[in-house]
Amino acid sequence: MKSFTDYLTYNVPSRRGFVNITNEIRKIVQKSDIKEGICLVNAMHITSSIFINDNETGLHQDYERWLEELAPHEPVSKYEHNKTGEDNADAHLKRQVMGREVVIAITKGQLDFGPWEQIFYGEFDGQRPKRVLVKVIGE
Amino acid sequence: MKSFTDYLTYNVPSRRGFVNITNEIRKIVQKSDIKEGICLVNAMHITSSIFINDNETGLHQDYERWLEELAPHEPVSKYEHNKTGEDNADAHLKRQVMGREVVIAITKGQLDFGPWEQIFYGEFDGQRPKRVLVKVIGE
Amino acid sequence: MKSFTDYLTYNVPSRRGFVNITNEIRKIVQKSDIKEGICLVNAMHITSSIFINDNETGLHQDYERWLEELAPHEPVSKYEHNKTGEDNADAHLKRQVMGREVVIAITKGQLDFGPWEQIFYGEFDGQRPKRVLVKVIGE
Repeated sequence: MKSFTDYLTYNVPSRRGFVNITNEIRKIVQKSDIKEGICLVNAMHITSSIFINDNETGLHQDYERWLEELAPHEPVSKYEHNKTGEDNADAHLKRQVMGREVVIAITKGQLDFGPWEQIFYGEFDGQRPKRVLVKVIGE
Repeated sequence: MKSFTDYLTYNVPSRRGFVNITNEIRKIVQKSDIKEGICLVNAMHITSSIFINDNETGLHQDYERWLEELAPHEPVSKYEHNKTGEDNADAHLKRQVMGREVVIAITKGQLDFGPWEQIFYGEFDGQRPKRVLVKVIGE
Repeated sequence: MKSFTDYLTYNVPSRRGFVNITNEIRKIVQKSDIKEGICLVNAMHITSSIFINDNETGLHQDYERWLEELAPHEPVSKYEHNKTGEDNADAHLKRQVMGREVVIAITKGQLDFGPWEQIFYGEFDGQRPKRVLVKVIGE
């Protein structure tokens, strides 16, 4: 069994945003030289997500609005967590809806994807550098 | 390390529905001849889910109603994504709640499951064939 | 490829609660003697979750309140599933929001974690022993 580990850093300039990271992951899989196996991609911070969905701006606006409905940022004082001096309790909730990680099959050296699958970094408490882990295992 | 890849296709006749795919996955694990490892099962489409829960019709009705409350299909015009000509923005949201994939331990050649765990394909924009990927790795 | 399997049991004295299981998982990874690979941790019951987030009591209170808003326990009669004699339909819904499993990278023999990542068992229908599976694969 072979394994390959890499880390990516994202600094989203706004509080919330989605970044398409598919190409970066593809390059790491290529570098790993693993032909059959799996690729784990996870946020290393607990107020961000990695998820797979559509590369469509309108949909990302829908996600943004929907997550704000499910777990609004304000009033900041409504969350116990924010009594510790934080203002990001909502980000911890939004991240649970969108997920921490994805596991992707590697087949014949490629991400084994359906027609529209793209990998996104979801930021819910940005304006600072945050890391993403990529681990490829296989043969 | 050994690996085994297979694809399943589901064509759910209604817009939304849940299909128990546990037996199909079990057969693939058997065919893989892998005794210790993991099995990844993921939707290859971004408006469907793979999840593990109870094989109980009432619960599936609860999921259906609950997901419609969290991310209603109508009015279709409330979603930016649907301005592209689609009407399935809600399906992209529902799929995030239910998840894209499951990773299951294989122990002694079997899915290492608790007493009630069953694997479901969750369709949120059906009436056409959609694929599911199964990747088994291990030894 | 090596693999290592273990099971943990939790008996949460209340209906709902969160238990930090990071240390137990760390010990299992150590025992596995696997240096590079992945670690799967999943609830074996369909009314509990494994998730990764912050070890902060206020945040856990926020999760509790938020999940009750999204999928309230009462009125018990509002759920079809509860007509089978159960009263835990809400637990099956809450578990989907928080997730069944996490997959964690093992690098140099350690859980490869960001600064605040901790692993939690999330109980939504407690007062009885329930199991968690840990599978480590790698080399």
